[in-house]
Amino acid sequence: VVSVSADHIPIIHFRISSFLISRVGEDWIFLILLGLVMALVSWVMDFCIALCLQAQKWMYGGLDSNVVLQYLAWVTYPVVLISFSAGFTHIVAPQAAGSGIPEMKTILRGVVLKEYLTLKTFVAKVIGLTCALGSGMPLGKEGPFVHIASLCAALLSKFMSLFGGIYEMLAAACAVGVGCCFAAPIGGVLFSIEVTSTFFAVRNYWRGFFAATFSAFIFRVLAVWNRDEETITALFKTRFRLDFPFDLQELPAFAVIGIASGFGGALFVYLNRLIVQFIRKQKAINKFLMKKRLLYPALVTLLISTLTFPPGFGQFMAGQLTQKESLVTLLDNRTWAKQGIAEEFEYIGHAAAWKHPQANVFITLVIFIVMKFWMSALATTIPVPCGAFMPVFVIGAAFGRLVGESMAAWFPEGIHSDGVVYSIVPGGYAVVGAAALSGAVTHTVSTAVIVFELTGQISHILPIMIAVILANAVAQSLQPSIYDSIIRIKKLPYLPELGWGHHEKYNIRVEDIMVRDVRYITLNCTYRDLHDVLLTERLKTLALVESSESMILLGSIERAQLQALLSQQLGRPRRLEYLRQRAQNERKQVSIVSTPSSEEGNHKANHEVRFQVSSGGEIPPYSHIPVLFSLPYFFHSLGLSLSLSLSLTHCLSPSFIFFSISFFSHSCSSPHLFFLPFSLSLSLQIAEWEELQLDEQVNFNNCKIDPAPFQLVERTSLHKTHTIFSLLGLDHAYVTSIGRLIGVLRKAIEGSVTVKGVKVRPPLASFRDSGTSSSDAEVTELHKLWNRHTNLTLPQDHQPSDSDEKSQ
Amino acid sequence: VVSVSADHIPIIHFRISSFLISRVGEDWIFLILLGLVMALVSWVMDFCIALCLQAQKWMYGGLDSNVVLQYLAWVTYPVVLISFSAGFTHIVAPQAAGSGIPEMKTILRGVVLKEYLTLKTFVAKVIGLTCALGSGMPLGKEGPFVHIASLCAALLSKFMSLFGGIYEMLAAACAVGVGCCFAAPIGGVLFSIEVTSTFFAVRNYWRGFFAATFSAFIFRVLAVWNRDEETITALFKTRFRLDFPFDLQELPAFAVIGIASGFGGALFVYLNRLIVQFIRKQKAINKFLMKKRLLYPALVTLLISTLTFPPGFGQFMAGQLTQKESLVTLLDNRTWAKQGIAEEFEYIGHAAAWKHPQANVFITLVIFIVMKFWMSALATTIPVPCGAFMPVFVIGAAFGRLVGESMAAWFPEGIHSDGVVYSIVPGGYAVVGAAALSGAVTHTVSTAVIVFELTGQISHILPIMIAVILANAVAQSLQPSIYDSIIRIKKLPYLPELGWGHHEKYNIRVEDIMVRDVRYITLNCTYRDLHDVLLTERLKTLALVESSESMILLGSIERAQLQALLSQQLGRPRRLEYLRQRAQNERKQVSIVSTPSSEEGNHKANHEVRFQVSSGGEIPPYSHIPVLFSLPYFFHSLGLSLSLSLSLTHCLSPSFIFFSISFFSHSCSSPHLFFLPFSLSLSLQIAEWEELQLDEQVNFNNCKIDPAPFQLVERTSLHKTHTIFSLLGLDHAYVTSIGRLIGVLRKAIEGSVTVKGVKVRPPLASFRDSGTSSSDAEVTELHKLWNRHTNLTLPQDHQPSDSDEKSQ
Repeated sequence: VVSVSADHIPIIHFRISSFLISRVGEDWIFLILLGLVMALVSWVMDFCIALCLQAQKWMYGGLDSNVVLQYLAWVTYPVVLISFSAGFTHIVAPQAAGSGIPEMKTILRGVVLKEYLTLKTFVAKVIGLTCALGSGMPLGKEGPFVHIASLCAALLSKFMSLFGGIYEMLAAACAVGVGCCFAAPIGGVLFSIEVTSTFFAVRNYWRGFFAATFSAFIFRVLAVWNRDEETITALFKTRFRLDFPFDLQELPAFAVIGIASGFGGALFVYLNRLIVQFIRKQKAINKFLMKKRLLYPALVTLLISTLTFPPGFGQFMAGQLTQKESLVTLLDNRTWAKQGIAEEFEYIGHAAAWKHPQANVFITLVIFIVMKFWMSALATTIPVPCGAFMPVFVIGAAFGRLVGESMAAWFPEGIHSDGVVYSIVPGGYAVVGAAALSGAVTHTVSTAVIVFELTGQISHILPIMIAVILANAVAQSLQPSIYDSIIRIKKLPYLPELGWGHHEKYNIRVEDIMVRDVRYITLNCTYRDLHDVLLTERLKTLALVESSESMILLGSIERAQLQALLSQQLGRPRRLEYLRQRAQNERKQVSIVSTPSSEEGNHKANHEVRFQVSSGGEIPPYSHIPVLFSLPYFFHSLGLSLSLSLSLTHCLSPSFIFFSISFFSHSCSSPHLFFLPFSLSLSLQIAEWEELQLDEQVNFNNCKIDPAPFQLVERTSLHKTHTIFSLLGLDHAYVTSIGRLIGVLRKAIEGSVTVKGVKVRPPLASFRDSGTSSSDAEVTELHKLWNRHTNLTLPQDHQPSDSDEKSQ
Repeated sequence: VVSVSADHIPIIHFRISSFLISRVGEDWIFLILLGLVMALVSWVMDFCIALCLQAQKWMYGGLDSNVVLQYLAWVTYPVVLISFSAGFTHIVAPQAAGSGIPEMKTILRGVVLKEYLTLKTFVAKVIGLTCALGSGMPLGKEGPFVHIASLCAALLSKFMSLFGGIYEMLAAACAVGVGCCFAAPIGGVLFSIEVTSTFFAVRNYWRGFFAATFSAFIFRVLAVWNRDEETITALFKTRFRLDFPFDLQELPAFAVIGIASGFGGALFVYLNRLIVQFIRKQKAINKFLMKKRLLYPALVTLLISTLTFPPGFGQFMAGQLTQKESLVTLLDNRTWAKQGIAEEFEYIGHAAAWKHPQANVFITLVIFIVMKFWMSALATTIPVPCGAFMPVFVIGAAFGRLVGESMAAWFPEGIHSDGVVYSIVPGGYAVVGAAALSGAVTHTVSTAVIVFELTGQISHILPIMIAVILANAVAQSLQPSIYDSIIRIKKLPYLPELGWGHHEKYNIRVEDIMVRDVRYITLNCTYRDLHDVLLTERLKTLALVESSESMILLGSIERAQLQALLSQQLGRPRRLEYLRQRAQNERKQVSIVSTPSSEEGNHKANHEVRFQVSSGGEIPPYSHIPVLFSLPYFFHSLGLSLSLSLSLTHCLSPSFIFFSISFFSHSCSSPHLFFLPFSLSLSLQIAEWEELQLDEQVNFNNCKIDPAPFQLVERTSLHKTHTIFSLLGLDHAYVTSIGRLIGVLRKAIEGSVTVKGVKVRPPLASFRDSGTSSSDAEVTELHKLWNRHTNLTLPQDHQPSDSDEKSQ
């Protein structure tokens, strides 16, 4: 009998009811505000987009006397809008370009992409998206809306004190984004979970539901108030018959749609990536396009709008219809092709666009699908705020309609055998196709729910679920999702997913993959050890052990902290202090050296004061620390003086070299070679002093140590390690055995970050932050080092013979 | 610029595509099998339930000449079925009683309730549930189905090698349970996530969707093949008009339904708990009911069936309708009460039951709601397999219908003002009410999705979402969910939830709640220290530090391991060895003592061999370790001999007392007081030996140490600590500062486990298990100790004067 007793042990017990009443408010006010603002943004944007599209139609219609004028109007209008959108986005906030879901995925998984959540980006995204969609290009609204909602949440949170932190709110915001875009609160919540999360806290679910529902509600109420709708209904309401939505024997056709959509989805992702890579690889094109930033968007728009020109090729692909109109016609519950004779159907309203005197509806649909497929893949590469969901959704609907029409032509009396004629509903196939293709491209199953909410009918639930699952199974085995693909293209940092079904990973243990040769520092190490470790190791954090014998892990220290320690020990104040003391001792030598030294000292001091102010005083401003990656740049800028100083001082301590070069780099604006004898004698003295300093034992008192780094055991499986890493947002973990450090495991984040101001920070697992993070200051510090060119790496085994020759 | 580089560091990189093809199979075969089996079980069960209900109706109908006979038939039938169900469940597997969701929630949060996932329980649950539902009582199928699906998954997994472990499959199984019960795959997945998970791995989502969809599909296809349905449609299909489902101005009425349902849901949970507690508290009733286990179910059934007897009181509450029939009529799209005159509506089929010559439909509905409310709360306390979801769903639908009918009576021409008359649809209100009340009782929002899938219509999405959210907000602030309530009633172990909106918790740090007075053992401690710690501390694990000075945390050791260490040191083999050696030295003393000692030794040796076999040889079989909680039992069984030996040996070492009593307890079957002088002299010798043994330093070589216990920092917030604890299923964490142990935090699991064979084990966070767990063996071991009465606690400060007096 195991008795789990709750007595006499400290309690993490949360009195729910008592807190609930007191301070619930702010959170819910935040969510309501977020929902309200996003609903308004969505509605106003839709209104503006509709105006833009109407204007184009009006122009096109007004000029029907002259085809050339008509063509010019048809083409110029979107080119201008897209160019404006691209230009505006580029000038105001380049981060606003693209979908935004990949970035949100990255942000929610632990990387803070700073510039992505600013007011500028918000403005650029909203205006850019409105223009882009107003142009009539095959672009979507959903992805950008996830980004806009997140931006909105980030901006709102600045004005409100949120208890849960921004992370929880961003997760809710993603749901709001989808929710108010499609008036699909449930689908929005699920889609945002699937797309952005690895692990999902169920308590956030509620938040997302609340905000998304409120937002969708307001969004639809606005439509009612504006007299667009009589009451709150679905965006693309279908009217399929309820009593017999489909026959059991139609299921194979639905399965075929699912499987074909899976292949189609993978092809779309592949095509999209191929276009981006092609444009990048062709250096001649690339250079030209880079110079004229607006040329690529304009060219793509010109091509697409030319092909859709209704009196031209557009007549074979319902080119005159907007995306929304196409979708409405595709989801129509009437059959276009009865008994194979397309003419029998009375094409009313927009549906007439699908009718062509020479080509029947099947040809029109096939052309539409093929053309829109590559057009959408191409259009989503334009650097404007745009998503791929809606174009793919429409293509899927067209494909479904094609299959449905074929089925209707094949079984004109329906399949059902029991006397009653239940004719086939091609609109139902269109719904299935839309859900399947968009599910395949985004690798989600919640598109099924979005489809129910968009159409307001759930009667086809089982065909849709089956098709979506099949499409996902096929697409996931062939290609990454469109968002993961963009993440790789943009080289955003991320931890690769663990797919399902990987048996091998359960047999791999931490001990098989850990690095046993861990770099560590001991509690009683000297500054020289510190220096050596910093030179040979480029890791962000280093393990602190008690001693090399015991190897007991005490904590981990950030590189920046160690650099600070070292620079404090060897820094200017202490050096100047030493020189001053020395000068007092040896008066006559001072008269020679003092002039340049003090001058330079003053010069530097000014700099340093400025930097101290900018860095907020957190990090000691004297960080003349070797930084490996600055080497090439450094060589380039220093040229001769570097090789000279290297040759002169090679026999001396590494930090002396560092010092002397730091000295030269400051004086290399004019030829200062005459300084050499002075600086040499001075340097020799300082070198001695530094040697002594380096042999001192490190004082860790003022150093920020992470006192409890994450530890794993050798036998932990790879699967569980991955779970822990992604759950807690770890980037490294030490492998210990009874307190002893025996290995280290670091997360291999795929892709590298080269954007300025990007910093890696675990979101869920900030649980181990013991206060404010110093990474901010660290970044600033590194920038400073860069700018001042005082960085240096010491190539200890690099060309020794060469430099030796020169020094002798 | 921070450069995150992926070079030169070990890689947790999972080649998805290469693995995907190789071994995907088993998992999906498992899910398909699970879905198939559950669909069959669900369908067969539904078929049997329908047969049972038909049989009752047939009996009732056949006896309409005599009301008394009719009454007897009406009442006896359910009493017999429920009694059989209760008896069968009690005999075969008492764990099968009740919903099963609370248990699954507990299991999925880290406690393995062993008996809950066996074949016996499966059989008991399936047969018991069929009988219980066949009786026509207001009981539900959903909760038990979650349990049955989990049982099915657990049993299936025995025959298949699953890579992901049972945990992932149980999560999917819960979704399958709901999915095939209501043919609601999406709602099933969401409901199971909301009900059972705290944190949800999105990669499991896919699994649940797949299995639930497949299961729902087969479940509905079976109905088509059986000619119950023409094609695959929803279970409770509604036919509300699509073009204008509701007016914007009806929303306040929907909100009222939501808020009232919130209060109603809380009241239901409260009432349910009250009944259980009332029955328990009334000792006289309780004793009587305990003796006659079938009496309580029979009495409750008698009461409920008497009240629903159609010619009796049942005529005022549509008593003749089964649960399913009630629901179908309540969701009817026609209005019952036009212009307040109920008679205008033509009651066709089952709907006629709602019509009463004397009472109008409003009165019938009110009586139905009130009566069913307490009946359902009462019926769900019967110890048969049963859920509360469906009864609550029906009550909610009735309440919604009541509000809808009132609205229809109030606005006979509808609310819409623009000329067209859109009359109010009370059926829509019924749908809203059903979702809201079931959402309030279960604290979920996914009931909304279940409702869409059950009715096959999504047109009322916004009213339903609003009502469900409001109902949840009200209910969550008043009462726990029905499942949490049952968890508390049953005293299942669980970690309380962190609700939303608890600001205070973000300001509480680990240092504020941790226990600073940590019990630890040092690497160089003696067995005496070990002994003392084991006596004064009842924790399951103890910290191992390097030394009291350094306090460097090296790991943690389970109590059982320490007990094994101690018993090895002081155990019988070493003691006998010592005695043998001693005997060789002092020949003459041996002749007196040897006979009983060797006899007893042989006797014991036999026992020990047997135990060694049963324990699988993992744990050393000599564990004469003091176990605190066995004290009272021990006193009781030993009586005089205990107090005597205590008085005799109080001046000696604790373990000596232990030994002497262990000695007596074995010989206390007959009066062995004459042994006293011998055993005293022997004991004194052994005491000396033990004293020496206890002063030896502990050898930790063969001891299983957890080499990396979870560590927190002082500044970690309570919120994050809770997240980590529930995420990783921790039950304790050490608080360290630079490797030094400064405190400990233990999870206060509410509720205690008194069920046999229950053991606490983290599921998600088994990541830190370094091999097979020893807890199994540990439990066995403790049982053995218990049975042999060799356990003893030493009350060191307990009545010293008293025993001193006797010993002198």
